[in-house]
Amino acid sequence: MSSTLQGQVVAIIGGTGALGSGLARRLAMAGVAVIIGSRTADKAEETAKSLPVPSGAAPARGMTNAEAAAAASVVLMTVPFSNQAAIIAEIKPHVSGKIVVDTTVPLVPPKVARVQLPPEQSAALTAQKLLGPEVRVVSGFHNVAAHKLAKDEPVECDVLVFGDEPKDREVAVAIAEAAGLRGINAGPLVNSVAAEALTSILIGINRNYKVDGAGIRITGIAQK
Amino acid sequence: MSSTLQGQVVAIIGGTGALGSGLARRLAMAGVAVIIGSRTADKAEETAKSLPVPSGAAPARGMTNAEAAAAASVVLMTVPFSNQAAIIAEIKPHVSGKIVVDTTVPLVPPKVARVQLPPEQSAALTAQKLLGPEVRVVSGFHNVAAHKLAKDEPVECDVLVFGDEPKDREVAVAIAEAAGLRGINAGPLVNSVAAEALTSILIGINRNYKVDGAGIRITGIAQK
Repeated sequence: MSSTLQGQVVAIIGGTGALGSGLARRLAMAGVAVIIGSRTADKAEETAKSLPVPSGAAPARGMTNAEAAAAASVVLMTVPFSNQAAIIAEIKPHVSGKIVVDTTVPLVPPKVARVQLPPEQSAALTAQKLLGPEVRVVSGFHNVAAHKLAKDEPVECDVLVFGDEPKDREVAVAIAEAAGLRGINAGPLVNSVAAEALTSILIGINRNYKVDGAGIRITGIAQK
Repeated sequence: MSSTLQGQVVAIIGGTGALGSGLARRLAMAGVAVIIGSRTADKAEETAKSLPVPSGAAPARGMTNAEAAAAASVVLMTVPFSNQAAIIAEIKPHVSGKIVVDTTVPLVPPKVARVQLPPEQSAALTAQKLLGPEVRVVSGFHNVAAHKLAKDEPVECDVLVFGDEPKDREVAVAIAEAAGLRGINAGPLVNSVAAEALTSILIGINRNYKVDGAGIRITGIAQK
C-alpha cells in the first residue's frame, strides 16, 4: 500500500453494489482500512464480513452511508447516477474538508451507449456543485468493468483521475493502485466529462464487438 | 486497401497542416486516391507533389479547399477549431450527400489541457449543425499525435469513429486502417465529445508525464 493511504480510512458509499464491493475487496486485500456504507447498516455489515482480512489488518466495518462518511477520512462514492443527488444529501453533513472520490457515470437508461451529459456537463461537476466548495471532489474509476474487479486477475484498464488539487488526485491514484489498477493524473475536475462519456462508448463497444469488458489504456507513458 | 475505399476519392481539407499531410502521406502510400485541399492551390500542389506515389497509382493532386471538396467523394476535414466554421462555409456548397469526416478538436488556447466544450457540446455536432442534414458527418482521428503519422512507425493509438449511420462509420474506419491505425466504431455522432475531450487529457498527460505523444487503446477487443 502506498504511503499516501497510510492512516487513511476509506468509506465506500454504496459499497454493497458491484463496483463498490469489487473495489472494497481489492482495497481490503491490500490492507487499506475500509468501511462499507449502505442504506441499511445490516446490508453493509454483511458485505463487510465477506471481505478478506489480511494478517495484521483490522476487519472492514459496515455502517449506514452517513455513518460511514462520518467515520472515514476519504469517501469513495459508488452509486448509480439516479441516486447521486439523494446520497450526496445524506453524506454532505459529514464530509466537510474531506476528499470525496466520485465514480458516478451519467448513464441515462435505456440508451446507456449514447452519451447524455447532465446540465452541469459531468457527474463530477454535479457532485462538486451539490457538495459545495468545502469538499475536495475528485473523480475516477468510470471505465472499469465492475465484474472484473471481483476476480483475482489483472484488469486491463487504466483509471483516469480528475481533481482540481494535485495532492487530492494523488489520493485517488493511490486508491487505484491499491486496487491493482494504474491510476493516471488526468487534470482538473472539468476534464472528467471525457472519462464519463467514454463509459457509454465502452458499453457500445461491448455490444458491437460482442465482448464483455472493453476498457482503455493510455499509451506512450511508462507502464507500471 | 479495404474495398470500402475502392473507387473513392478522398479530399483532405487543410491537407498542408501536420495532421492532414501526415494522413495524406499514409493514405497515398496505401494507394488511396488523395486530393490535398488548402487555402491556396499553390500550397496544396506543393504538398501533393511531396507525397509518395506507389507503382500503378495516380499521383495526389492539390487544389483549393472548395475545389478539392467538389472533386472528392469523401471529405476529410483537418483544420484547427478556430477555422472550422469558416472552412465549412467554403466547402458546404460542394459536399451535399457526401461523407465529411471531421477531425476537429475544440481546443481553446492557451488552456489546451483543459476541456472547454463548444455550445453544441462537440466540434462534431457543430459541424453537423453548420453543414446541415444533407451532409453525412462522421468524426474521428481526434487523439492521434500528428507528428507520429509523419514517421513510418506503428502508431500506438486507436481511432474512435463516430457517426449516425453505420455504413458511414465504416468509411472512416477504412480510412484509419489505410493509414495504419485501428479504427473503432464508437457509436453515434453525439458520442464524439468523449474523444474530443480526451485530446485535452492526452495533452495534459504529455506535459505531466514528460512524454511526447500519449495515445489511447481500447482493451478487451481483438487486436488487429
